[in-house]
Amino acid sequence: MKKTLLAIVATAIIIPAAIANNFEEPADAIKYRQSAFSLIAYNFGDMGAMLKGKKPFDAAVFSSRADNVAALSKLPHEGFIAGSDKGDTEALAKVWHDKADFDSKMTAFQDNAAALAVAAKSTDQNLIKQAFANTGKSCKGCHDVYKKD
Amino acid sequence: MKKTLLAIVATAIIIPAAIANNFEEPADAIKYRQSAFSLIAYNFGDMGAMLKGKKPFDAAVFSSRADNVAALSKLPHEGFIAGSDKGDTEALAKVWHDKADFDSKMTAFQDNAAALAVAAKSTDQNLIKQAFANTGKSCKGCHDVYKKD
Repeated sequence: MKKTLLAIVATAIIIPAAIANNFEEPADAIKYRQSAFSLIAYNFGDMGAMLKGKKPFDAAVFSSRADNVAALSKLPHEGFIAGSDKGDTEALAKVWHDKADFDSKMTAFQDNAAALAVAAKSTDQNLIKQAFANTGKSCKGCHDVYKKD
Repeated sequence: MKKTLLAIVATAIIIPAAIANNFEEPADAIKYRQSAFSLIAYNFGDMGAMLKGKKPFDAAVFSSRADNVAALSKLPHEGFIAGSDKGDTEALAKVWHDKADFDSKMTAFQDNAAALAVAAKSTDQNLIKQAFANTGKSCKGCHDVYKKD
């Protein structure tokens, strides 16, 4: 029991040390996640414009955008470090209070974005639209709970 | 001959229409490329810290960083739209004067970043270090010519 607990504590210390400790201060972490979110919004927005007929649907561009969103979806999470609820951010303190739920919503977003990138390589517009809608719901579902209005 | 020229002109019109026209003003394009570059610098910097022994080398984290850099390397180019040499940017006007050379340097960076992502999945530290150095040279080679000091 003691050994297991020690192993858990050791893991908890080692993993963040390897991944984190790269942001010198919370403001850097905030900027990092905001940069990633803004790139996601830009690429996702262009896909939406194509699906809504605001611009011609270009399968290659759409797929490239979807690949970008899938890759970018993995980035913001790292920026939600402890202490970065204060500062120039729209993230609510609830992110850190309900961290497990926030983390699971972020994972669901990543999964939906990955599925959208796969769907975008098909010619099935219904599949593409459904995958796009699922990803959009992931964004909204998290924003509704964890982002300032 | 006329037909070929028409096809080239048509392609030249259609491709930018599909890809661009998403930035409402040059400042948005500048912010887009700067966001992408800052995410690249963060991920690449962490890889450098591992290779230089400033932190433990973690193969999984290193490979994930390399994947991020490879995906992100494709983003900044879109932000170098006409007119975005003015404003809050460190890009020199030379980017647009020598656009073909700039574009080829950007492509070389993307190729080197893709090769680094592949190398990062190996256990060959020499291969990894060489691929990392090549990518770093791509960054510096472009900055030396096209970025303000």
